[in-house]
Amino acid sequence: MKSITFLILLSLSATTTSYGQGRDRDSLEPEATEVWQLIDKVTPAKTVGGAPSDAVVLFDGSSLDAWIHLDGSAAKWEVAEGSFTVKRGTGDIKTRETFGDVQLHIEWMAPTEVEGSGQDQGNSGIFLQERYEIQVLDSYTTETYANGQAGAIYKQYPPLVNANRPPLTWQAYDIIFRAPIFSEEGRVLVPARMTAFLNGVLVQDNVRIWGPTEYKGLPVYVEHGRASLKLQDHGNPVKYRNIWVREL
Amino acid sequence: MKSITFLILLSLSATTTSYGQGRDRDSLEPEATEVWQLIDKVTPAKTVGGAPSDAVVLFDGSSLDAWIHLDGSAAKWEVAEGSFTVKRGTGDIKTRETFGDVQLHIEWMAPTEVEGSGQDQGNSGIFLQERYEIQVLDSYTTETYANGQAGAIYKQYPPLVNANRPPLTWQAYDIIFRAPIFSEEGRVLVPARMTAFLNGVLVQDNVRIWGPTEYKGLPVYVEHGRASLKLQDHGNPVKYRNIWVREL
Amino acid sequence: MKSITFLILLSLSATTTSYGQGRDRDSLEPEATEVWQLIDKVTPAKTVGGAPSDAVVLFDGSSLDAWIHLDGSAAKWEVAEGSFTVKRGTGDIKTRETFGDVQLHIEWMAPTEVEGSGQDQGNSGIFLQERYEIQVLDSYTTETYANGQAGAIYKQYPPLVNANRPPLTWQAYDIIFRAPIFSEEGRVLVPARMTAFLNGVLVQDNVRIWGPTEYKGLPVYVEHGRASLKLQDHGNPVKYRNIWVREL
Amino acid sequence: MKSITFLILLSLSATTTSYGQGRDRDSLEPEATEVWQLIDKVTPAKTVGGAPSDAVVLFDGSSLDAWIHLDGSAAKWEVAEGSFTVKRGTGDIKTRETFGDVQLHIEWMAPTEVEGSGQDQGNSGIFLQERYEIQVLDSYTTETYANGQAGAIYKQYPPLVNANRPPLTWQAYDIIFRAPIFSEEGRVLVPARMTAFLNGVLVQDNVRIWGPTEYKGLPVYVEHGRASLKLQDHGNPVKYRNIWVREL
Repeated sequence: MKSITFLILLSLSATTTSYGQGRDRDSLEPEATEVWQLIDKVTPAKTVGGAPSDAVVLFDGSSLDAWIHLDGSAAKWEVAEGSFTVKRGTGDIKTRETFGDVQLHIEWMAPTEVEGSGQDQGNSGIFLQERYEIQVLDSYTTETYANGQAGAIYKQYPPLVNANRPPLTWQAYDIIFRAPIFSEEGRVLVPARMTAFLNGVLVQDNVRIWGPTEYKGLPVYVEHGRASLKLQDHGNPVKYRNIWVREL
Repeated sequence: MKSITFLILLSLSATTTSYGQGRDRDSLEPEATEVWQLIDKVTPAKTVGGAPSDAVVLFDGSSLDAWIHLDGSAAKWEVAEGSFTVKRGTGDIKTRETFGDVQLHIEWMAPTEVEGSGQDQGNSGIFLQERYEIQVLDSYTTETYANGQAGAIYKQYPPLVNANRPPLTWQAYDIIFRAPIFSEEGRVLVPARMTAFLNGVLVQDNVRIWGPTEYKGLPVYVEHGRASLKLQDHGNPVKYRNIWVREL
Repeated sequence: MKSITFLILLSLSATTTSYGQGRDRDSLEPEATEVWQLIDKVTPAKTVGGAPSDAVVLFDGSSLDAWIHLDGSAAKWEVAEGSFTVKRGTGDIKTRETFGDVQLHIEWMAPTEVEGSGQDQGNSGIFLQERYEIQVLDSYTTETYANGQAGAIYKQYPPLVNANRPPLTWQAYDIIFRAPIFSEEGRVLVPARMTAFLNGVLVQDNVRIWGPTEYKGLPVYVEHGRASLKLQDHGNPVKYRNIWVREL
Repeated sequence: MKSITFLILLSLSATTTSYGQGRDRDSLEPEATEVWQLIDKVTPAKTVGGAPSDAVVLFDGSSLDAWIHLDGSAAKWEVAEGSFTVKRGTGDIKTRETFGDVQLHIEWMAPTEVEGSGQDQGNSGIFLQERYEIQVLDSYTTETYANGQAGAIYKQYPPLVNANRPPLTWQAYDIIFRAPIFSEEGRVLVPARMTAFLNGVLVQDNVRIWGPTEYKGLPVYVEHGRASLKLQDHGNPVKYRNIWVREL
């Protein structure tokens, strides 16, 4: 008690001289800016890119049990050698489980078969909450529009840089996604945000997503709750592996 | 020309019916939402955590040539076996080169020698722009205040989770740092921001830094320009290796 | 249909030449970037500062029926001449109704009786959601700490400028407040934000509130839902009038 | 000194019990969270909507001296009765002075002559930095696309509500505009932001502007420095008065 009184006298006398300089810091105690909270423990993976202890593993290399087609049927894409491949014409697949804010790790590989150019070369897509797409495309050699390359929030934000690896090479996205927040009347209050690394290189820095991905016209938010992670069948045999999410 | 006129007529007629639904998207052309820009190429590292082609390597495992003490003298910390160790009492070191916005990769290892508890166990710190500290501490077993753990923006933001590895194990930070922006009169217009991963696990998500790290009292921004990356000598033999930055 | 095909040919031919320049905009139709939505009508007040048609009027000049003390009892502050006055020792008052995101208009007047200096002169406070305080103080002549002046988010952000009027003059706050958003586990996902004008002059620009106002130590968010607007009895006879909020 | 030692002992003993609860606040001194800075004085206007003491008045009711056409010639729009009117066919006008971040107040009035419908009724526009348009339109009765109404960031963000007054009535915008910030290589680092009130009602809340206003196609940022405030000649006799800005 005595000590506190003494300190206050000290700091009052300091006031007139320290104006514009902050207080005389020597008279302050460091404890006032400590925050005491319990922080949850998470065990990181032994290897970089591996799933931490609190992650939901969405593909362990052997089974697509966590995935279904949009009509609810079992995922018909092909699993082989620890990865799975888009099966043309079967349609998109999505996770049975739904998510809000997530940290997502996902690896993909573009094929060499060039079935077209621009948007027809190794095209697929990763839709956060079934709506917000980060593009998957063989952008190593292909020329296309900037907001349609790998690393782009499709038809919205071009990637900061083109950090693609060649086709037939595994590539990795590490993504922080914050789901949009809607008012009770269904109006978007806080737009979705995304930060993304492609092969360890920053390609999106906390961008505000304009709304659900649209091929034509501007996006407009429509209210929704938790939703699945969706992968696109764009007709090209893109491969995926090592997929996990941590709910944030 | 003819086609454009035709489309406009189409869309005007659509107006009255599509109200509240967005336009009839079939009548729109997808090119209107393409953005054509040249995106710079960056070659990612072959191994995860390695330096991409546009990175500045700040420690290659053999020399501290890129680092000096605050008085400008050559860095006296000890290099051995591909890493370097804080040499107690020599003082902080900083890079010769200065930076603004960066993506930073840096690896560190806490010692086992317990020289104290709480803040005295494996304590060091990484100061972005010589001012904004993300804490380095053996927080695997040690109890301390939440905004003083590894992963914390020191005395500001606790980490989202405790993703520490044990002492004597290498740990990695991957950081996105956006420097503060000041007005011509020196007032902070846009505070610094940081996103950080510890061992691949998100620990800071785009937090707004309050100001330069202060041990006592609240931080207050003071104008500055580009500045060095600084590592703290807190008296504990913390090791560092594999340090690189990409300017954003 | 025919027209669409024609346009696509046009734009493909444009692709090679327009690289890095955006597309040839003449070949695009303007409708693609129109958004058709119904926008709610709000009738603004006839006079500036008056309540718009969708506002909840919290004080109409005659009655404190909308307000209670923290123990639930009727507000004992004194109503006279279209305003009401803090009644020393009766304690804070808060609205019966609770709010989330709001646009708030509130007018206040500091007394001339100087009962002290610094923080003891015309001190009161406006607590959004009972927790996040924008300071009310006679800061026209009084010297106090910057983050304790009128216009400050108390103990957090100083006002951008001192736009105070003298005591015995009505002053007005116009405030945009976005409530914090918490995860299901009670962790803050999106901190509260505030933009504020004092007497028509910007004093806070979309600042991220650190947590509930604390007189001592750092704020720490604790989960809550909708909450009242609270006015502080700090022992000084501050007057209030013309209070309304619009839910956002 | 003695007092500080004593306090630290106190707080260490508190540590074990207060875990997860913040520190025992009674043992902290309030001065540690005070910020002492000099805050500039600004005298607010006597009447609401009037220019504060630090504002640049861009139209005082009598002269367009502060304005020029885009070719540098004197502004030919007509001044009468304390306001000025868009003179069809003379082209846009802009301020001689250039600005960065501003608080802007501007009043406008739509004519009754209906020269068309939708976008042809009382159409003009306010371009911050000659590029980022907040729409001026008689949206009281007219139906048009949501992101083309008064209160809209044109072709980007619809207004939160329609707070229009009828034609022949003065309306007021109060705007906070933060200019975009570009990297040394000309890439946008921080997009422009806008908060806007129409007739005292919030219509834009800190939206991130996508880029310069485009009638066709998506906006793409192109680096620029300080720039003028521009008003659009869209062929309709819109009136303006009481225009001032404060640099932020």
